[in-house]
Order: sequence, then C-alpha cells, then structure tokens
Amino acid sequence: MEEVSTNLAFGGVQGVYRHPSSATGTDMTFSVFVPAHPAGQTLPVVWFLSGLTCTHANVTEKGEYRRACAELGLIFVAPDTSPRGQNVPDDPLGSYDFGLGAGYYVDATEPPFSANYRMRSYFEELSTLVFDRFPGDPSRQAIMGHSMGGHGALTIGLSEPGRFQSVSAFAPIVAPTQVPWGIKALRGYLGHDRATWRSHDAVALIEDGARVPVILVDQGTDDQFLTEQLRPDLLENACREAGIPLTLRRQAGYDHSYYFISSFMADHLRWHAARLGGAAR
Amino acid sequence: MEEVSTNLAFGGVQGVYRHPSSATGTDMTFSVFVPAHPAGQTLPVVWFLSGLTCTHANVTEKGEYRRACAELGLIFVAPDTSPRGQNVPDDPLGSYDFGLGAGYYVDATEPPFSANYRMRSYFEELSTLVFDRFPGDPSRQAIMGHSMGGHGALTIGLSEPGRFQSVSAFAPIVAPTQVPWGIKALRGYLGHDRATWRSHDAVALIEDGARVPVILVDQGTDDQFLTEQLRPDLLENACREAGIPLTLRRQAGYDHSYYFISSFMADHLRWHAARLGGAAR
Repeated sequence: MEEVSTNLAFGGVQGVYRHPSSATGTDMTFSVFVPAHPAGQTLPVVWFLSGLTCTHANVTEKGEYRRACAELGLIFVAPDTSPRGQNVPDDPLGSYDFGLGAGYYVDATEPPFSANYRMRSYFEELSTLVFDRFPGDPSRQAIMGHSMGGHGALTIGLSEPGRFQSVSAFAPIVAPTQVPWGIKALRGYLGHDRATWRSHDAVALIEDGARVPVILVDQGTDDQFLTEQLRPDLLENACREAGIPLTLRRQAGYDHSYYFISSFMADHLRWHAARLGGAAR
Repeated sequence: MEEVSTNLAFGGVQGVYRHPSSATGTDMTFSVFVPAHPAGQTLPVVWFLSGLTCTHANVTEKGEYRRACAELGLIFVAPDTSPRGQNVPDDPLGSYDFGLGAGYYVDATEPPFSANYRMRSYFEELSTLVFDRFPGDPSRQAIMGHSMGGHGALTIGLSEPGRFQSVSAFAPIVAPTQVPWGIKALRGYLGHDRATWRSHDAVALIEDGARVPVILVDQGTDDQFLTEQLRPDLLENACREAGIPLTLRRQAGYDHSYYFISSFMADHLRWHAARLGGAAR
C-alpha cells in the first residue's frame, strides 16, 4: 500500500492511498480519515460508497465529514467506484452510467467486464486491508453511500447480516432491477438472466428475506433522478412489509449534489455513531 | 448578472453567478451563500478572497463554511482571483504565481496587464453588485482570505478604515514587498518603482499608519511556504508596534491546503460573527 498524500485536518489525518488489487487486477485508490485518538485504541469504521462518475476524491473534498468524524471518533473510508487504468474496458459508448466510475458494487460475469469489474470482491479485499493497516474495530462498522453508492451500501449491508450496526444512504438507487440506470448496469455486468440480478437489488433482497437492523435515508425532493431512477417509495414499501425500521426523510428542495450530501452528512454520522458506540474515550 | 447555478445547502442557497465586469473588461464568476433568513432581513457579509491558482470554486467546494454561515446568519461571498478569458494576457511562462489565477488584488499599471488585471477595482465593483442583488448589510462586513487572498483581505481591510469590523486570514502573504511571490507579482503588475508597492503590502501599510480593529490569523507550522513566502512573524512585529490586536495561532502540523482551511473555517466565522453582531433573529 502506497501513501499518495496525508493532510492534517480537524486534528486527524486525511490520507489517500493506492494499492494493487487482486480483485480488480488494477491499482486502486481510496481515502481514509483517522481522527485523533489515544495510542492503541481502535475506532468504529464508517464506509462511504460513492455514486456514478465519482472517485474517492468527491466525498473526500466535498463531503464535509471530517468535523463530525473527529468529534465522534469515527474512521471514514471512501473507496473508488470502479477499476481504472489503460487496460480496463469502458462502456463502448463512453456513457457516465456504465463502465469507468460506475462499477455498481457487483462482480461482473460478462466479458469483457468480468476481468476487472469485481467491485463487490474489491470491497472485501479493501476491508481486509483497512483493518490491517488502520486502527479500525471490525466489530463496529457502519456503511453508507450516495446514489449508486447508496445502492452499494444497502445491498452490501443486506448481504452481510451482523456485520454493520447501521446502514444509511443519500438518494440511493434502491431497486436497480426496476429502473433504467440499474437495468443497463446489471445487464451489462451480469448478463440477461434477471434471476442473477436480485442479489444486487436492495428491494429484492428484502423481499427475499435479507435484513439489516436499521436504515436511514435522506432524499431530496428536487432530485432530478427521484422518480425515474431512485424510487425511495419502493424501499419504503419493502421495509414496511419486512418490518425493517427505515427512517426516510424527504428533504424539501434538495437536489442530488454534494451540497445536499454535505448538508446532512453530520446527521448521518451522529446517527451511525449512536449505534456504533463511538470511540471508548 | 447571470445565475450559473443554485443549490440548496444547509437550508440556504449556494449560488454561482457571472456578470460582465467594467473593472476587468471580462465576464467574472463568483459565488454567494445566503443562509435561510426572514424575508426583508439583511445579514452581515463575509468576503473570502482565495489564493493562487484558485477560482471561486475551491472554497465553495472545499471550504466547509456553509454550516457555520447557516448557524450564524452570515452571507459568504467568494470572488475569482483574476480576470479570465481568451483575450486576457497570462504570464508568458505560464507560471502559477502570476497572471491567470494570481491577480493579487491590485490594479495593474504595467502593460499588457493593466487592461484587465484590475482586481482591486473589481472588488469594489463586485461589492456594489452584491449589496444590490443580495440581502447584505453594508454596515456589517468582514473580510478574510487564504495565502494570496489573505494578502488581499489584509490590504483591503487596511485600506478601507471603518468598512470591516474584522479581518482574518489563513496562511496569508503578509509582506509581498519582501518575499519572492510578492516581488514577482508587484513588479509585474505595478512596475519597478517599489514606492508604488507599499499600499499593497499589509506590513508596509501598518508601518505607514493604516489600522484595522482586529486581526485573526491561522498559520500551519508545516506549511511549505511558511518561511520563504508567508512570514507571519513580520505581521506579528508590525501589529505589536502599531498596537493592532492580532491573534496569530500557529497550528501545529497543518499545511497550506484546504484541509487546513476547512479545519478552522468555523472558528473564523464564529469570530467574525461575534464582531458583526450576527443576524438579528
């Protein structure tokens, strides 16, 4: 693992790191914020999965999470959203919603994407690396994300029962098997057999019996993707029927941008910290 | 004035605007955050002048000022750092510290820069525009900046007695007539007669009798530009001799980046708000 940069921020260290990934067959870059803490102490870890077109850098620069993480004693990890590099295939049409910057947190089975687009396995590989190299407590983890990354947070949370004390999202894609973004991506990465898609769809996972302890979702009412791509109503219905405690906050006037995310980031982190126990200081 | 974008953030509106400037002879872009406030109420205004290479966008995206401005009821304005456009001359060598992105908040007198690089006059033009179009209270103003913009905040603050209740800076260039960055810029914009430079040098202005009510400066001790370009000790000495109350905080381990700025942005805004009276709500 190579240190790309470290900067002191809010008394902690905001780092950016690069490592060769066996999951993707490429170098991968991610960021980690570690707040100031007593030597030898471990801290809860919050995973933040980003949305379409993003790298680790978007939330790192615009997410405004460091003040709250420093106050609450949370490690904040931001992975990239796809493999990258000269030999990594992209959408042949170069669109923003498939290929580079759009890995959808799945392991692709369709060539040519199956060689590198293994972002679900990459998440596990990165988890191992992070707990090996940073003072995270694996028994206290939360996962959150934005848009495509909200999809990632929900589906990974639902797929690993017991791992995450809490799951939250900003404007998540909740049912990719039912919306244009998701159908394009899942068909491209997983092929035409829709049965294989269900384990990468939060609503379908819940319908099929998957559970998480608690979910918080913020959704802007002026989000341009709300009715066609995001459909929080589908998550609301699925959680109601499954008895999963979902807090869905429709935030009047907010859009899909980091201005929206940053406005409610501290709320989410406080909510996670209350369920993670915070740092034992 | 044209609206480039507006986004709801922390209950207020983060806008980006463009307007034709008579001072620079170009279109200029700037950002304004207006917090939620009762209709008809005016709010104090904080001017943020950015550093070398920046546009309005750097602090707008990375400055983390919106939460504090929303809480404190402060309008936050971020101008660009130079004229821009096809016909605007740049440093012939394309260096980062002169020309585009490096206007130094002076009115150039040397050709070819004198036609467009009139950033001191532009600040006044923008002030008029902002108070005309946004609910700012001209009797309650603060000015702050970073690096070259810290130089701008200090020199404009010192040049307009009575206008600003408070002046603050992150890692400012305090004595451009004495450091390489400043000497290059002032010579390039103002010519070889150093007598004309003194009114654009905070330390010289103080030596020549200019005063502001109070100054707050944060300076990272690991700032790569500290000893050669920034020299806060020169400001410290000048303020001590002049009796200007300066709070100079040497922040251990911090660098010159927005990670440093964002860490202490809320501190500065609270400090300004205490002197501006805040919104009367």
